[in-house]
Amino acid sequence: MTVERPVYETALGASTPDTITLLGKDLARDVMGTVGFGELAFWLATQRRPSPGETRLFEAVLAALADHGFTPTAIVSRLTFLSAPDSVQGALAAGLLGGGSRFLGVTEDAGRFLNAVVRDNPSQDWDALALETVQAQGKARIPGLGHHVHKNGDPRTARLYEIAEEEGLVGPHLSLFAAIGRVHPQVLGKTLPLNGAGTCGAVLADLGLPLELLRGFALLARTAGLIGQLAEELRNPVANEIFLSVDENTRSVAPVEE
Amino acid sequence: MTVERPVYETALGASTPDTITLLGKDLARDVMGTVGFGELAFWLATQRRPSPGETRLFEAVLAALADHGFTPTAIVSRLTFLSAPDSVQGALAAGLLGGGSRFLGVTEDAGRFLNAVVRDNPSQDWDALALETVQAQGKARIPGLGHHVHKNGDPRTARLYEIAEEEGLVGPHLSLFAAIGRVHPQVLGKTLPLNGAGTCGAVLADLGLPLELLRGFALLARTAGLIGQLAEELRNPVANEIFLSVDENTRSVAPVEE
Amino acid sequence: MTVERPVYETALGASTPDTITLLGKDLARDVMGTVGFGELAFWLATQRRPSPGETRLFEAVLAALADHGFTPTAIVSRLTFLSAPDSVQGALAAGLLGGGSRFLGVTEDAGRFLNAVVRDNPSQDWDALALETVQAQGKARIPGLGHHVHKNGDPRTARLYEIAEEEGLVGPHLSLFAAIGRVHPQVLGKTLPLNGAGTCGAVLADLGLPLELLRGFALLARTAGLIGQLAEELRNPVANEIFLSVDENTRSVAPVEE
Amino acid sequence: MTVERPVYETALGASTPDTITLLGKDLARDVMGTVGFGELAFWLATQRRPSPGETRLFEAVLAALADHGFTPTAIVSRLTFLSAPDSVQGALAAGLLGGGSRFLGVTEDAGRFLNAVVRDNPSQDWDALALETVQAQGKARIPGLGHHVHKNGDPRTARLYEIAEEEGLVGPHLSLFAAIGRVHPQVLGKTLPLNGAGTCGAVLADLGLPLELLRGFALLARTAGLIGQLAEELRNPVANEIFLSVDENTRSVAPVEE
Repeated sequence: MTVERPVYETALGASTPDTITLLGKDLARDVMGTVGFGELAFWLATQRRPSPGETRLFEAVLAALADHGFTPTAIVSRLTFLSAPDSVQGALAAGLLGGGSRFLGVTEDAGRFLNAVVRDNPSQDWDALALETVQAQGKARIPGLGHHVHKNGDPRTARLYEIAEEEGLVGPHLSLFAAIGRVHPQVLGKTLPLNGAGTCGAVLADLGLPLELLRGFALLARTAGLIGQLAEELRNPVANEIFLSVDENTRSVAPVEE
Repeated sequence: MTVERPVYETALGASTPDTITLLGKDLARDVMGTVGFGELAFWLATQRRPSPGETRLFEAVLAALADHGFTPTAIVSRLTFLSAPDSVQGALAAGLLGGGSRFLGVTEDAGRFLNAVVRDNPSQDWDALALETVQAQGKARIPGLGHHVHKNGDPRTARLYEIAEEEGLVGPHLSLFAAIGRVHPQVLGKTLPLNGAGTCGAVLADLGLPLELLRGFALLARTAGLIGQLAEELRNPVANEIFLSVDENTRSVAPVEE
Repeated sequence: MTVERPVYETALGASTPDTITLLGKDLARDVMGTVGFGELAFWLATQRRPSPGETRLFEAVLAALADHGFTPTAIVSRLTFLSAPDSVQGALAAGLLGGGSRFLGVTEDAGRFLNAVVRDNPSQDWDALALETVQAQGKARIPGLGHHVHKNGDPRTARLYEIAEEEGLVGPHLSLFAAIGRVHPQVLGKTLPLNGAGTCGAVLADLGLPLELLRGFALLARTAGLIGQLAEELRNPVANEIFLSVDENTRSVAPVEE
Repeated sequence: MTVERPVYETALGASTPDTITLLGKDLARDVMGTVGFGELAFWLATQRRPSPGETRLFEAVLAALADHGFTPTAIVSRLTFLSAPDSVQGALAAGLLGGGSRFLGVTEDAGRFLNAVVRDNPSQDWDALALETVQAQGKARIPGLGHHVHKNGDPRTARLYEIAEEEGLVGPHLSLFAAIGRVHPQVLGKTLPLNGAGTCGAVLADLGLPLELLRGFALLARTAGLIGQLAEELRNPVANEIFLSVDENTRSVAPVEE
């Protein structure tokens, strides 16, 4: 069969026998040794090189999300490494698969929620817009509001606002989110903290990163964290003990027979 | 049942109502806004903060491995995103699962191969050691030697040696690998390039990163690359066309009936 | 620390030095050699042993969903096996990760959609209920209605109804779905086929399988299909050719926003 | 560009507007309602329809491997479902990723080990061949020999031999494995049981299933088991309690600072 073939375009990696390019740059000469990893990740996602301030703020988000200790995803990664030590890629992939709606989703949910409001509201009266937004939400949760541990304030939130201000990068998403933090008590009758994961979503949206992939940046950060978890597991293994703590406390019961 | 419970120790993320620590540091105050993402990934893996030179060299490795265009892993990630757009974590995880022995394994293989030689040989006569190593290998491939495209030299290799020299970080793995590059023609009767993926393995081993996880760093780099692939797929979708180019050229044949 | 430990109950697998039980049965004596694999999968999911008729209908659904040729999930599994041949689990997992909302989701969507109607409507006038349902849906798609290839009828649909009737297992979900097939033209002004994937969802819901896991049964069927794909790939490899058909038709373009 | 396109051949699923075929059969007419799921999985893997006896033996293997209670893979699947309940495919994939060398690998290892011996030894003096095999192994473990719980015999082993004999399917792999069970004490000086997972490998090899995919059948069986685990988790959730049992027993320690 002789036919017209499709052509697949990409601005990402490409190579000839003598050169390798990435994002239109000579990889060896213009990227390696010059571009940091956070900067590169931003550039790959947007095809736009970030400013130093954008890179600093973006890397602060990645640091905020990299590791939270023995989360379900960390436990999953360690247990998978225990079962299949020959497949590091499987242990990392399994850990990332927990990055769904519940444990890592707040970042994406908050970014999308804020974006849905600000993209249609050129207004700069953030408190008024926030009040309207909180009221419209009714009994539905506002993504990014509240934290089960840091009830008096998530330390990452204040720090992200501080860095964003230092770098002149407080955009509409962060502005609206801050306003929600100020006004929600008069609607909800109680004061909840703006959590760090939600603030990360506001930052990423203000940085212009694609909303459909906000969760992806949480997952990138978490990949570094999971490598840390696996490295610690190699040094000081606990996965088998976790497994045994379940195994030894199992009780066999009759089937439901519904 | 009342029993002694196990205790799970970690030096990674931890939190109290008022603070979050990571690697024994106050996350908000001492990490966010100060520590770059490559630096943090190194620190998480070794629990040792790298020097600026180590960070620069490590980030050069990550840049070298981040994206190589339409590799099988990139295609896999795009096709999975096409099928399940609601699950970014699934698209990234699927892409990483191709990071096994064939396409991303060279980095780990080279690091382990070199390490197996240097850890037992305090000698500094690299050419002699390299000659012995290449001869001992017989007909078996030497990991990191040869490249199907960059037959006259992989541009990443020269650049990594350059950066390592600038930073004073040429250790035994890079030294032996360079020597293998010099001496192998007298054994093999032909000259092959030291490829970039193998050089990355030598660098990571010289940096003291855990050998069992060298593949993990290739996967971390690739996670950033895959996010780039998915972002490009959102802007300029090709996955469906790739699928159709297979689907439309399928021919149904009789089963083997062996 | 000495504390009350949690106890984890299960009716699934359990063992003592001398016996292994599964679902409260002696595995070796009462399950192996007696219980077919489809029957066992049903039993594991519901903790209720299905009748022979239920097993036959359930296995017809699994056959209907097992393999559809070079789908994105099949391509993904083959490409991952090409990249990481040492990790069969990775190739299967990667393939399953495409089982999301778009390509494998219809089964679950149809089952849930029908269930949302029938669980609140004890009525048996299916055509009236179907008409109301189709009208209420407005311009929104009805899951399971329409097929891009089988425009004049999906052959799996008629067969599933036939088997369900033979076994006396046409329940409310299948009844409503059939009625939707009869009445939708008077609302939509055109006739669309009831597709096989949607009919599978109606069957699984009528069989009392958990709605939250309907997609899981499509994935179980697909696991068998993917093993078939990998076995064929071993005999007659095409993954590398698929990869090359993309690789050789790549065109490097300038980044979006540089 | 106008070029010769590749053609991708498959004997698996194919469809035209009016028919769907699978393995050269009319799916609706000749497969659905007639072919059981275990039979179909065998057929897909070999492209050869198994006899009823082969199907029975194959399904006994799948039953033997389907679920072993709270294994690491079951825990991983439940924890991933807890974190990302919207993605059943992710929870199943994560569970399968633990199906590597340690916990599910024995089946494949035993099948390959036995095959490496029998394919070069047409001899039928199994005890002599077994003795030679055990001696040649030296201090290396023999895959499938020994069990940490069923020290006096794994009940699945005897049952699999019984079924294989009933069906006339005791081939060279099962014969050699049984002989290893008889003769190893005179070499090792102690008696170890032939475990069920290893016997499954011998059965699958005798059934002519592809050696490279033996692990795949363990994974197929486990997919059904993991659906059972998730169904039980929906009814009687324990994943959060498992997570908390780790989380609440965490102790933050100083980094290694090596």
